[in-house]
Amino acid sequence: MNFTEKIQSVCRAQNSLLCVGLDTDITRIPDFLKNEPDPIFAFNKVIIDATAPFAAAFKPNLAFYEAQGTAGWQALEKTMKYMPKHVFTIADAKRGDIGNTARQYAKAFFDHFKFDSVTVNPYLGLDSVAPFIENEEQGVFILCLTSNTSSQDFQHFTHDGQPLYQFILEKVNGWNEKHNCGVVVGATHPDELKQVRDLAPELPFLIPGIGAQGGDVELSVQNGTNDNGELALYNSSRGIIFKSSGTDFGETAAAEARSVRDMINQIRKRLV
Amino acid sequence: MNFTEKIQSVCRAQNSLLCVGLDTDITRIPDFLKNEPDPIFAFNKVIIDATAPFAAAFKPNLAFYEAQGTAGWQALEKTMKYMPKHVFTIADAKRGDIGNTARQYAKAFFDHFKFDSVTVNPYLGLDSVAPFIENEEQGVFILCLTSNTSSQDFQHFTHDGQPLYQFILEKVNGWNEKHNCGVVVGATHPDELKQVRDLAPELPFLIPGIGAQGGDVELSVQNGTNDNGELALYNSSRGIIFKSSGTDFGETAAAEARSVRDMINQIRKRLV
Repeated sequence: MNFTEKIQSVCRAQNSLLCVGLDTDITRIPDFLKNEPDPIFAFNKVIIDATAPFAAAFKPNLAFYEAQGTAGWQALEKTMKYMPKHVFTIADAKRGDIGNTARQYAKAFFDHFKFDSVTVNPYLGLDSVAPFIENEEQGVFILCLTSNTSSQDFQHFTHDGQPLYQFILEKVNGWNEKHNCGVVVGATHPDELKQVRDLAPELPFLIPGIGAQGGDVELSVQNGTNDNGELALYNSSRGIIFKSSGTDFGETAAAEARSVRDMINQIRKRLV
Repeated sequence: MNFTEKIQSVCRAQNSLLCVGLDTDITRIPDFLKNEPDPIFAFNKVIIDATAPFAAAFKPNLAFYEAQGTAGWQALEKTMKYMPKHVFTIADAKRGDIGNTARQYAKAFFDHFKFDSVTVNPYLGLDSVAPFIENEEQGVFILCLTSNTSSQDFQHFTHDGQPLYQFILEKVNGWNEKHNCGVVVGATHPDELKQVRDLAPELPFLIPGIGAQGGDVELSVQNGTNDNGELALYNSSRGIIFKSSGTDFGETAAAEARSVRDMINQIRKRLV
């Protein structure tokens, strides 16, 4: 099963397009967990157990682990070993480097951590993506149009009326011979999301920015899914995992994950 | 002392523009080190001792540490603790993410590892750079024109005749209020290097691509230094650290570092 089929299959089996972002900021986890030997892993374990029934994917954000040094890296290793087999995993690492270095990053995320996919920054071109798309079962989400305000600084730089992010998309369509390339498009840009979907009907999309970042769920589901209401993963991190900081944080995260999943599914139902 | 002054001061004190890249690929270190409890650190220790007299800076390439998981991360922690105080350090991490995530990366590289600088990918715009340039003593090298072949894929995308990498440079000049922004320009593009230096006379440059990547040292020193023959760091990684795989690898690396430093200095002497 190739990367694209794998995403489709997980989403169907789970009846969900929800991706839960594990942006586990140690300063924001409940106080009673802070005395655990590995507070980050203790937190992730509860969140994974609670939200896995409602999620298609989990996306650890590497920065929050790296900020804790070796302890953070160990927490990520334990988290990945704990992941249920049925979910899809995304290393939100936004790596991008010359060929021989990109190969080492691929080794880190695919061979060492066993992620299904990695987010990759396209600025260095094909060399920096190639080592991640050699095997059809593993793949990338390439940054196209990101959810942050200053995405406008360079991503909208135009040549003959075509913005850079659309030129990148054109290239990614060409690189997708093994059906293992996807793109990242922020929910905070619903109009552009529609254009991108029209230009890339076959690519899986990773769509961050619903939840804490305030992206419009209705529009981003309408505009981001394909004609079958599929091939899009909607990520929420802080909006789910830090919804409560009490002892009920697991139940609260579960309720929020269920509610986001249901909201997305209701919109999909009206579309197809 | 701000970031730019710090680079200038280290280079003057060492009489060197050489940066030694610690791309410590565990498969390429000498066999007799592979039984050490921490082979990566054992290798780096010898390389640092041997080359520090001839180097202004050291640049660990994060990918090679991450590929080894927690063990690699520990080796990097030990390497950074072992760094002599007089050298300048660069985390070659090429990170780039939305604001709250970029802040965590800054925490990892500045607070945890105590690097002086980080390489940053500009694709996400100012949000992704801001947390790295808050303190004038620490700063960034922002990817401008990279040394790899596929740098042409997107970095030469033009608007009204201006390539993207020059537009980025223009922005970086504007972001440099605290004198803590530099750029990465590959030695493999000597003509563009001259243009970039003309457009940014005050920025420190990190210039990879001499050594194994085959960039022209003569031209890249002529074109990359400022009017005083300063403000440029020339990185060689594999060309120095893996020059010998025998028990003499330290001496061989020292001889190569000395030779590259001298070659650069001879070219500088003819210039100013």
